[in-house]
Amino acid sequence: MKLMKVTSPERVIEIIIEQFSPLEAVEVELMEAGGKCLAEDIYSPEDLPGFNRSTVDGYAVSAQETFGASESIPALLECSGEIPMGQAAPSLDPGYCYQVHTGGMLPAGSDAVVMIEDTDITGDTVQIYRQVAPGQNVIHQGEDMAKGQLALSRGQTLRSPELGLLASMGVSHIKAYRQPVIGILSSGDELAPYHTSELEAGKVRDSNAPALTFMGQQYGAKAIYGGILPDTYEEFQNESQKMLDKVDFMVLSGGSSVGTRDFTSRTLQELGEPGLLVEGISIQPGKPTLLANCGGKPVMGLPGHPVSALNIFFIFGKAILQVLSGLEVNREVATIKAELNRNVPSKPGRTDYVRVKLDKDEEGITVAAPVFGRSGMLRTLAEADGFTVIPPEKEGLATGETIEVQLWD
Amino acid sequence: MKLMKVTSPERVIEIIIEQFSPLEAVEVELMEAGGKCLAEDIYSPEDLPGFNRSTVDGYAVSAQETFGASESIPALLECSGEIPMGQAAPSLDPGYCYQVHTGGMLPAGSDAVVMIEDTDITGDTVQIYRQVAPGQNVIHQGEDMAKGQLALSRGQTLRSPELGLLASMGVSHIKAYRQPVIGILSSGDELAPYHTSELEAGKVRDSNAPALTFMGQQYGAKAIYGGILPDTYEEFQNESQKMLDKVDFMVLSGGSSVGTRDFTSRTLQELGEPGLLVEGISIQPGKPTLLANCGGKPVMGLPGHPVSALNIFFIFGKAILQVLSGLEVNREVATIKAELNRNVPSKPGRTDYVRVKLDKDEEGITVAAPVFGRSGMLRTLAEADGFTVIPPEKEGLATGETIEVQLWD
Repeated sequence: MKLMKVTSPERVIEIIIEQFSPLEAVEVELMEAGGKCLAEDIYSPEDLPGFNRSTVDGYAVSAQETFGASESIPALLECSGEIPMGQAAPSLDPGYCYQVHTGGMLPAGSDAVVMIEDTDITGDTVQIYRQVAPGQNVIHQGEDMAKGQLALSRGQTLRSPELGLLASMGVSHIKAYRQPVIGILSSGDELAPYHTSELEAGKVRDSNAPALTFMGQQYGAKAIYGGILPDTYEEFQNESQKMLDKVDFMVLSGGSSVGTRDFTSRTLQELGEPGLLVEGISIQPGKPTLLANCGGKPVMGLPGHPVSALNIFFIFGKAILQVLSGLEVNREVATIKAELNRNVPSKPGRTDYVRVKLDKDEEGITVAAPVFGRSGMLRTLAEADGFTVIPPEKEGLATGETIEVQLWD
Repeated sequence: MKLMKVTSPERVIEIIIEQFSPLEAVEVELMEAGGKCLAEDIYSPEDLPGFNRSTVDGYAVSAQETFGASESIPALLECSGEIPMGQAAPSLDPGYCYQVHTGGMLPAGSDAVVMIEDTDITGDTVQIYRQVAPGQNVIHQGEDMAKGQLALSRGQTLRSPELGLLASMGVSHIKAYRQPVIGILSSGDELAPYHTSELEAGKVRDSNAPALTFMGQQYGAKAIYGGILPDTYEEFQNESQKMLDKVDFMVLSGGSSVGTRDFTSRTLQELGEPGLLVEGISIQPGKPTLLANCGGKPVMGLPGHPVSALNIFFIFGKAILQVLSGLEVNREVATIKAELNRNVPSKPGRTDYVRVKLDKDEEGITVAAPVFGRSGMLRTLAEADGFTVIPPEKEGLATGETIEVQLWD
């Protein structure tokens, strides 16, 4: 029997980073840019804010005219009026102040704002009970961002704060890496379309179709589902080729039987250079995973068992989509700490992904219960909140051990 | 001066849960159901799998005919042929076995599968070198899910495993709570549309428009941005009413000046019963937040400062969208553990959300550096990876303390 050559999960991630690159940059309007990766450096085209602004409601003053002011000996300034929001401020004469609102523009000649709580007004005369230092309660022109300053760098993800920052600088169009298109094909003679109501004996439904389509979308791709591949090699290869021409990343799912796996393996070798890169991963579940570079496009052959297929896509499919989108791959992931409630054995030399269900015990401690089951059983994955990773050098996890659980969202 | 009545963040979440309910249930096709919340219990319409399946490549046998088999004394069975994938298996006669593939159907009369590695074949005679127990290498009919068994419950989020499970049962349409529509309006005389290239003096761009639109989408809503509200109360109220009629949740953003805040507060009181519920939250940043129930629809008045507005939406806007979508609100969130690299003071009695940037030190330890800056400065939020929460009973955080950082995605 031919032994499968397995690659470590870490090495597979390295291969993905080495072999593939972000898609081309395209111009995107801000309202469509959320979650995308910036493909250019952005320098601020102007000072932000564009003028000195008050951070409180109060009176714009020349700070030195308030020096020494106190409850018992207030400073007295004449009020020249109110500076309405969104309007240019006139300039301030000595001995005068202007009423300003939070976010309002300071008049030339003023350098601080006295909070309204620290004042009283009689007629046009404002009594100031507390001195202010120059710059107090003011955000200065260019303080958030100076004109010409590097605001955002190529490679940054555009989250809501970045979108807000771009909008505030008046940058309404940016270059971002194009959204990847993922093509999903299923294979295996046992498969029937997932919407089949009455199954023939021996058939199972193609459950990976909606599951992988959603995962592709979750990781930022546009997903095309192409159905179940025919069972002769020529047609299998033809259909795969047609899909690959339309997409940036192709996933062939299914094929637990030797025949289908052979078809997938041959196709991955023949669709383009350099062909097959990985023919197995030292991971559980999901060992019989294929990865190829077909003429610059990543192609994966996922294992047949649904749980293995989803697990592999969660780790490596996501990494591929991150690379294509220009995003960082090895970003630290957030986890939930939990106490394991029973022993979990593991085979050394292999990275184990153990499905766990989270719960709280009587003392409010988060407890993780492993969900056991064969890798084909989707219920075990649906019951799990996430998983914990047992590295290859460990022989398992012990009851009571604190583990880190990555959520399956 | 009128003092603002503040509510604790925990109480605001309770109010949101008490006052609002999931939207109506609608029928959704599986390919569109990802991320939605199930509005019905789903019982499996059939056994899953629908037949006994092999979990390995090998020979389907009657286990008792292998008892005692070993390397030196193999059991001998005649091979009746191969059971092709996806086809009904014929029945097995005593003294015979069938070749089966992983996922293939077992013939009646067989109850176990011998792995191909533990066999040899000479002509039609299979030598079996290892005995198998009944049930070994078999997943039984109904083992993943029995017909009539509760598969998924109302209120469950449809992640990829749930979609796969539904597909495998042949459930291609389900009832899910309708996707909420969020309407976003900005206000404030100082605001100019975010795509304005040349600003007039005293004006700032409406940076919340793209930021909040994206956040609404991230939390599962369809977002409608309605522009900047006019500056007379009648028009302000009319435009708000028109937007509210079209959406399930309305957000009025901006209005740091007293005038605009008054408009917002009056509008929230007048758009429908019971009106204003919260007029301030003991949280930093984001204290001057308004929340209302206008005829059953949630309406928020976000503070004017962009950072405060986004922080508040991240916590409470998300919670509202979760309630409307039928999702759990108080779900534990995943965090990254980090060592704080300087002291952070905090005012007791208030929940502080401190922005932090994550980095690795020389020893590979994750270090969190607080990003200080006034709440209006979007750059401070764009520089932060996430935030840590200082509860009201704490007076701050100390250098070296291990904190939990929630990522801002």
